[in-house]
Amino acid sequence: MTTINDAAPLPLPDFATTFPGPFPASPHGEHTEHRLLSWLEEHPLLPTTKARNSLANITSHGATHTFPTAEADDLALFAQLLLWLTAFDDVHGEGNATSTPGAFVDRTSELMLVLAGNDPSPAKNPFPTALHHLLTRFQIRTSPTAYHRLTAALRDTLIALIWEVHHTTKPEKVTLKTYLAMRPHTVFIKVIMATAEIILDYELTPAQRTLNPVRRLETSVSDLAGWINDLASYKRESAQGPTLPLSLPTLLQIQNRESIQEAFARANDMCESEAVAARQTITDLSRDHPNNLTTHARTLESITQSFIWHTSHARYQI
Amino acid sequence: MTTINDAAPLPLPDFATTFPGPFPASPHGEHTEHRLLSWLEEHPLLPTTKARNSLANITSHGATHTFPTAEADDLALFAQLLLWLTAFDDVHGEGNATSTPGAFVDRTSELMLVLAGNDPSPAKNPFPTALHHLLTRFQIRTSPTAYHRLTAALRDTLIALIWEVHHTTKPEKVTLKTYLAMRPHTVFIKVIMATAEIILDYELTPAQRTLNPVRRLETSVSDLAGWINDLASYKRESAQGPTLPLSLPTLLQIQNRESIQEAFARANDMCESEAVAARQTITDLSRDHPNNLTTHARTLESITQSFIWHTSHARYQI
Repeated sequence: MTTINDAAPLPLPDFATTFPGPFPASPHGEHTEHRLLSWLEEHPLLPTTKARNSLANITSHGATHTFPTAEADDLALFAQLLLWLTAFDDVHGEGNATSTPGAFVDRTSELMLVLAGNDPSPAKNPFPTALHHLLTRFQIRTSPTAYHRLTAALRDTLIALIWEVHHTTKPEKVTLKTYLAMRPHTVFIKVIMATAEIILDYELTPAQRTLNPVRRLETSVSDLAGWINDLASYKRESAQGPTLPLSLPTLLQIQNRESIQEAFARANDMCESEAVAARQTITDLSRDHPNNLTTHARTLESITQSFIWHTSHARYQI
Repeated sequence: MTTINDAAPLPLPDFATTFPGPFPASPHGEHTEHRLLSWLEEHPLLPTTKARNSLANITSHGATHTFPTAEADDLALFAQLLLWLTAFDDVHGEGNATSTPGAFVDRTSELMLVLAGNDPSPAKNPFPTALHHLLTRFQIRTSPTAYHRLTAALRDTLIALIWEVHHTTKPEKVTLKTYLAMRPHTVFIKVIMATAEIILDYELTPAQRTLNPVRRLETSVSDLAGWINDLASYKRESAQGPTLPLSLPTLLQIQNRESIQEAFARANDMCESEAVAARQTITDLSRDHPNNLTTHARTLESITQSFIWHTSHARYQI
């Protein structure tokens, strides 16, 4: 197996025909960034000013691409949730947790108790209190079913993050099939999709939600989110070592006994094919006059664009 | 610290004045037991005939006390869910999982994927397929919000079980406060309470759900369920060794530096006080003419009685 140390170029997938830029962005980016920074004063999720500034920057700009038409307050609420998730994963998950999966399970269980309705106890760890604060605002903002869908996605994400920290150091023990099923939950796309109807004030009917094209598009977007993120962060994560990252290229290399260049080429093909499928379904769903399905398709389009946009941010450069 | 090997008698709490028997039971016990056994033919969750017969027996009889007025089909559906949970914990959790928390996390993650809407892949492990089967039936049976509440409780239970397997061998590392918060989720009472409105066809309004007496009663019943189970199973679990069980008496012993007899006396007091509080709230909520709140109070009463009833079953005798 070839490792990243070979330093050969690893081009990223090409979305020029399926999701051509420039992507629309909300005008509330700066406002959102300020709101994130002041929220982080109240909830000190991150240890350093540098970490706070960096995460507030990428999250606010990412959010402006995720929901370009959202109201300022809604965009800030969404961005706070996304920042909270990313900060939790950065501080307690990923590399930091691999030495003690048990400690990560304890942190996650505290969050479960908040999701189950327990009041967070004032503690050194600010994540449960910040989550409680967010949930209260989402609950006021939306319908019971939309709120339930959001909290379900959050719970699934917590379980997926626990799964991830138990496998981070030994990606070779994970099958590609399992990885592909778990990845949407660790990249937060399920939470993002659950917030969409809340932030943009629409709600699919139960019948619309089970339509084949809707489910297919949601699956495509979920897969693309994880794969794009994996490809964009592969060099950075590999450089962190000592093991290969638990990431799509790693698992493709192992399953197909191929070089990292071949694995990247294969992953790029997967992304580009999925993007073609997604684009086609977005076009199909948007063909009719404006309705919920068109709104949903356009929203999934902008969510996809936000993941593509992220790959150009400094967080993913090494 | 005194251990169970001292073999002094450890009397259980006395509910003679708060929840006096005999407890009402559904006439569908035998029918339910047959349904469980045939369901286990279809979904071979348990390895031996003996294990199947034993769990079908206690679960069907327990269910007849949990929901004595339920229709036969509803009672069977509830009993299947309860059996599925108990079997999952018996086969993959508790003692069997302590050597490999990672393997338990994998099994739990498969269930999360089913809860998230993925089709279970046909596999050697029958639990995801059986869960999918149950969820489909609950979804048809009830409203979207009641279904969401059930799946939320199931997700929380999975996280709590993961928490438990990470601590089973070292109960001394768990604080009493954390244990008390987590215990309702590992004893399945949150799932049982979420099924109540589905099985008995009533639904609290959002305003009723947040009433102080309702929340207080639900908390009392949740606590009682875990504590009663802990006291009843302590001897059996201690005998399994080699460490003390992760259980209320163990944590009381550690926190208060007291003997197991003193810890039992203290736990019995906790149970009996909580039972007095629960009984008072049931009486208060049932004072008005029949309505949803009365139904809910009576249901929580029978759920409590089912936990008290369980302590007399052979599963808890050593």
